[in-house]
Amino acid sequence: MSQLAEKAAENVRKIRECKPLIHNITNFVVMNTTANVLLACGASPVMAHADNEVEEMVDHAQALVLNIGTLTDAWVSTMIKAGRKASELGKPIILDPVGAGATNLRTNAVKAILAQTWVSVIRGNASEILSIAGAGNAAKGVDATNSVTEATEAAASLARELGTTLAITGESDLVTDGHRSLRIEGGHSLMPLVTGTGCSATALIGAFHAVDKDPLSAAATALAFFGVAGETAGAKSAGPGSFMVHLLDALYSLSPEEVESRCRIEKI
Amino acid sequence: MSQLAEKAAENVRKIRECKPLIHNITNFVVMNTTANVLLACGASPVMAHADNEVEEMVDHAQALVLNIGTLTDAWVSTMIKAGRKASELGKPIILDPVGAGATNLRTNAVKAILAQTWVSVIRGNASEILSIAGAGNAAKGVDATNSVTEATEAAASLARELGTTLAITGESDLVTDGHRSLRIEGGHSLMPLVTGTGCSATALIGAFHAVDKDPLSAAATALAFFGVAGETAGAKSAGPGSFMVHLLDALYSLSPEEVESRCRIEKI
Amino acid sequence: MSQLAEKAAENVRKIRECKPLIHNITNFVVMNTTANVLLACGASPVMAHADNEVEEMVDHAQALVLNIGTLTDAWVSTMIKAGRKASELGKPIILDPVGAGATNLRTNAVKAILAQTWVSVIRGNASEILSIAGAGNAAKGVDATNSVTEATEAAASLARELGTTLAITGESDLVTDGHRSLRIEGGHSLMPLVTGTGCSATALIGAFHAVDKDPLSAAATALAFFGVAGETAGAKSAGPGSFMVHLLDALYSLSPEEVESRCRIEKI
Repeated sequence: MSQLAEKAAENVRKIRECKPLIHNITNFVVMNTTANVLLACGASPVMAHADNEVEEMVDHAQALVLNIGTLTDAWVSTMIKAGRKASELGKPIILDPVGAGATNLRTNAVKAILAQTWVSVIRGNASEILSIAGAGNAAKGVDATNSVTEATEAAASLARELGTTLAITGESDLVTDGHRSLRIEGGHSLMPLVTGTGCSATALIGAFHAVDKDPLSAAATALAFFGVAGETAGAKSAGPGSFMVHLLDALYSLSPEEVESRCRIEKI
Repeated sequence: MSQLAEKAAENVRKIRECKPLIHNITNFVVMNTTANVLLACGASPVMAHADNEVEEMVDHAQALVLNIGTLTDAWVSTMIKAGRKASELGKPIILDPVGAGATNLRTNAVKAILAQTWVSVIRGNASEILSIAGAGNAAKGVDATNSVTEATEAAASLARELGTTLAITGESDLVTDGHRSLRIEGGHSLMPLVTGTGCSATALIGAFHAVDKDPLSAAATALAFFGVAGETAGAKSAGPGSFMVHLLDALYSLSPEEVESRCRIEKI
Repeated sequence: MSQLAEKAAENVRKIRECKPLIHNITNFVVMNTTANVLLACGASPVMAHADNEVEEMVDHAQALVLNIGTLTDAWVSTMIKAGRKASELGKPIILDPVGAGATNLRTNAVKAILAQTWVSVIRGNASEILSIAGAGNAAKGVDATNSVTEATEAAASLARELGTTLAITGESDLVTDGHRSLRIEGGHSLMPLVTGTGCSATALIGAFHAVDKDPLSAAATALAFFGVAGETAGAKSAGPGSFMVHLLDALYSLSPEEVESRCRIEKI
């Protein structure tokens, strides 16, 4: 898929040039990491969750990232308010259904957000995505995964049903808008041992989507870029502590040319 | 104490095999660090504090960690709700009384949690633990410490009174259930210069207690493991920044055999 | 300015000796980083934001740092309550107007805090500071900057009007109390690519002000120290991940003598 590899390089270039502002309403665990990942790749992050502030912030931003970790009812309301504003303004919304399926609060929050806003891309692991489909997986926290293969069929069908693009990450990643499906390889075994790498992938999709209107291409190139950065970091790391350090360095220093030559996206 | 050294190695092995889910209701400063420490040692962390979610999450988890840093009244209520559920289900509760003694809110929160839930282990520094006993220490923030020795007598007596195990950390650590007392050596002088190392120790006790029913053994082996990791990290570090990186790498890469040969736990 | 260079060294020494307790009411993104920066330089951080706790905590502390990132109305009230207590007790208050000008919530929060408490130093980037003057800059998130030069005139006048010291950071930093103005050089181009470096500078001013009663000298020497640490870190770093690690190590290990010989503060 040399076309998507070129697109990945182009998106990286655009982010570094345009420094799109990405508005995140995200969980407490990963706020710092998310901001650092966005800064490292060249984007400009802002975190804001006040009911009387989010609409103004959405107005400044080029994309809105909603992440339901460490959730409460008040945050759901705020996410919906921000999401409605972004929908109205035609700005891309990326949803991370952290722990969906694990509790009713989280599963219902995803449903409410999807019902009331135009979500462009949902990024989650297989069990989280399947929970949206009502497949009723027993949850084992946010790090649970089923195999990506199991989820492919359900994903394309669910993407059509929801009218959204799904990005399902695991050992390899699947991105589908229900009509076109892509597999992305890359990353490193240390990645799931650092908290917030999934949430970081979601935020990166926000940055890529801010400069690339096609949700499928934005999600796939973001994940491919993240995968290349993960490989670079993994090769230098002695464990999850050094991995995170090298990951931020790689997101910052990878050239568009290197991203293009190393990223692995294929049609499935 | 070769028996406890063996137990430490066994607990490390079990955590890496079983990946117990540890439910944390903890403070904003250390959420990220706590999650990373648990992931690095092989456990699976989840953070959830919503009133209408915590009982379900406790149901999924193998241990509950309550930490009263950055506290508000609403969080105290949630901690008690989660703690009552864990008590009902017989799941271990580990309490970190961050800053107890410094303000009435924190001191009273500890009392309320202890009165309404079955806390298995309390992990704090000497001044925090003594504040529970009503010793009325003047507080100097959460980094305050008195000498561990001063606290030993009060600790064994307090442990019996509360019917809980106390883990008092400082230059050397003391663990007592009121009948049996252990001293643990290890760690490094950079440890208190990284925020959240105490809170990380508490979370690790949660992971160890999830695979080891004896609170005394769980707490002592967790602290001994943490001490070995701290020594490994300290030997490689130029300051607190690199220390945290190496600490996570060490928690991930230390073999059970190395833990067994290097951990220092003795009866007192 | 060898006199201020000596003062910088003296302040570093005093912080390491006295370990002043710095009470932070700050945003979720940078709480961990702020605590680590304060610990690395030798101070003792505490984070507390509960309405029924902040006055007691202010009473223990030697300085109060207010930071309006990730703001809500409830937090504004708490900041004002803490600020009034600090004003009453004569303890220095340092304000970081993160994102002021970007939303009404933030701009109004700054006004309310300034109206009801005695703020000793405000540390922000040029666009944030100008927003307080009502210059009405279009906001582009918290990472927005105008040139420091543009802001100098407005700053001195604004400092006199508000009766406070302003510390405006950018490629070079400007500190003015309206009568005396200083320029500080230092730092590294990676600094703005790590989230929370601005907030860290603010917290450091808190630590320096805790041991140095002159707000101008405290702010200038804190920024000069931070600049030297940034240069040290930048020289060793491959990107923003390693930069943060080396920055904490530098804040910890720089000797007062090295700070004195390398810090660059000049009158303007």
